[in-house]
Amino acid sequence: MAVVASHFLLPPLCLPPPSSRTASHYSVSPKRPPPIMAASSSSPSLTDPQYGGGRSRFMEFPHVSAPHRDLMVELVSAVEARLDSYLLPCTLPPDVQYYENQSGTAQATLHVRSGHDSSPEQLGMELSEPGSTLNKIDFVLGSWIHCQLPSGGALNITSLSTYLNPSTDAPNFLIELIRSSPTSLVLILDLPPRKDLALHPDYLQTFYEDTKLESRRQLLEKIPESQPYFSSSLYIRCIVSPTAIMTRIETEAGGVERMEEILQSHVGPVAMEVLGIWLDQCAFGEREVGDSEISYLEKRDRLIRSKTIEIDLGSSLPRLFGPETAGRVLEAMRGVFK
Amino acid sequence: MAVVASHFLLPPLCLPPPSSRTASHYSVSPKRPPPIMAASSSSPSLTDPQYGGGRSRFMEFPHVSAPHRDLMVELVSAVEARLDSYLLPCTLPPDVQYYENQSGTAQATLHVRSGHDSSPEQLGMELSEPGSTLNKIDFVLGSWIHCQLPSGGALNITSLSTYLNPSTDAPNFLIELIRSSPTSLVLILDLPPRKDLALHPDYLQTFYEDTKLESRRQLLEKIPESQPYFSSSLYIRCIVSPTAIMTRIETEAGGVERMEEILQSHVGPVAMEVLGIWLDQCAFGEREVGDSEISYLEKRDRLIRSKTIEIDLGSSLPRLFGPETAGRVLEAMRGVFK
Repeated sequence: MAVVASHFLLPPLCLPPPSSRTASHYSVSPKRPPPIMAASSSSPSLTDPQYGGGRSRFMEFPHVSAPHRDLMVELVSAVEARLDSYLLPCTLPPDVQYYENQSGTAQATLHVRSGHDSSPEQLGMELSEPGSTLNKIDFVLGSWIHCQLPSGGALNITSLSTYLNPSTDAPNFLIELIRSSPTSLVLILDLPPRKDLALHPDYLQTFYEDTKLESRRQLLEKIPESQPYFSSSLYIRCIVSPTAIMTRIETEAGGVERMEEILQSHVGPVAMEVLGIWLDQCAFGEREVGDSEISYLEKRDRLIRSKTIEIDLGSSLPRLFGPETAGRVLEAMRGVFK
Repeated sequence: MAVVASHFLLPPLCLPPPSSRTASHYSVSPKRPPPIMAASSSSPSLTDPQYGGGRSRFMEFPHVSAPHRDLMVELVSAVEARLDSYLLPCTLPPDVQYYENQSGTAQATLHVRSGHDSSPEQLGMELSEPGSTLNKIDFVLGSWIHCQLPSGGALNITSLSTYLNPSTDAPNFLIELIRSSPTSLVLILDLPPRKDLALHPDYLQTFYEDTKLESRRQLLEKIPESQPYFSSSLYIRCIVSPTAIMTRIETEAGGVERMEEILQSHVGPVAMEVLGIWLDQCAFGEREVGDSEISYLEKRDRLIRSKTIEIDLGSSLPRLFGPETAGRVLEAMRGVFK
């Protein structure tokens, strides 16, 4: 059941302000302008019934602990604050934004906001980042899955990932928290590279060495309850960066309180820092590519997305939600990933 | 001092038979013909004075424990048994085959055997593998480094790596054992890929999934004294495979005996198995590439080798052996890696 949905789960943006507690808890890029939380004139209302209330349901994270939920809300809020004017509203069908199995023991949300084809300026929209005229955002994807376990416990996975388009070769962003019990956490946090790092040491230098991502990985490695996590999929291991945080944290001895402390005091701050690096250096970095590289990036991005869906969801989603629901969700996912 | 010489250390081949103990201890590819230990008619005598006795000095591994030495000798012997007729003798200058610092506290050997430009058949040589007409071997490189530490102990590194040429895209082989004390071992054991695995899932399947290399990694991961090892170089992390064994084993509680037991009963058998997979699937696998791919492989191989020398040896060798000796060895290394 490990990494049932890695890379799949990601919050759509256009969300409510985070709780005041998390807002003061994690800060990202204080030098940046304040978030633009209001929907722009060209966006449908966030409460538009056509969206089926999927976004607010997604943002509830109803089955995880307060520190876990706070972190997810804070992450989504930070992305939205910076990228809102570059993104369309989520247009997935309501029965893909929220779905469950027949017995109601498994529930999930999926929210995706694609980037505009045109830049915000071209659309006459207010820019959230002055000077960022080119829209590099392909889409932002978020989700949670909740699944009752035969043992009486529950599996909860929450995830957020952001994908850039081939106008830039900068890395994507991914965070996934997998909880098979209140005292267990598998954390995947990374800026997955979009080039072969062995062949592009300058890219490694720019996005992984100069940004000191390794120091963040080491911070979490030092938590006494933490040990490295190896994905059972070799392909997933191949598409993460050398500074990927892939860790399993077990706090049976310290109980739920210790896990919540770790989420709040260690995982949260590191996750927000990594997201801040992604926003500053990747989403808004000056890194555009020429025509010759675009087809390479298109090919590599497409292959990784296709393999990721197959590995993460191809077998687990039908098992959890039945073939019909899984088919509907997978079809929608493939549409987004194309 | 971690990974002072990763990838750099590798035994030249053309060695004496392993000790009877190790010979019976680790077996590789029993279905293969017996090793051809005698030098072929076109090779200079293995005791030819022009080689300065460097090979026999290398094969002594004089500063490591018996199980460690036995494993290295067995590995080199296995490579030589299969590849001898494809390799030239080592022609490095004697003062590169063996070198030391002025005070004699640091000593090292370096042995390299390059592949023939022509196939053994074209040279009229006896083939060690019937039917293997194309010489895919670029070179085989081995070494040990011994360095007395100010603390009174010693650092010992032994290594063997094999490099294929661009007529095939099959992975290389690498093993390195780093001992900073008799109860400490860092082991790096891998078939480093020669393509971007994210873009070539079929290659991942062939060389890493179908060969079940992950099960070998897991065997060593389960040793209680073992924990994952992260190279301090992000670039080194990028060039290893997803099944790379990168582990640190500390046996302070169990003492030297426990380390020797681990080397003999766990590390040795796994290392010989991984080498056997490389020999069967890579060195003698049917995997040749077209002209269009050769320039890609040449570029990628060249870059990785150049970066590897720079990272592993560029700063550590001058520090250990002084600038003059280090310069001589590095120049010879660059010549080989070209």
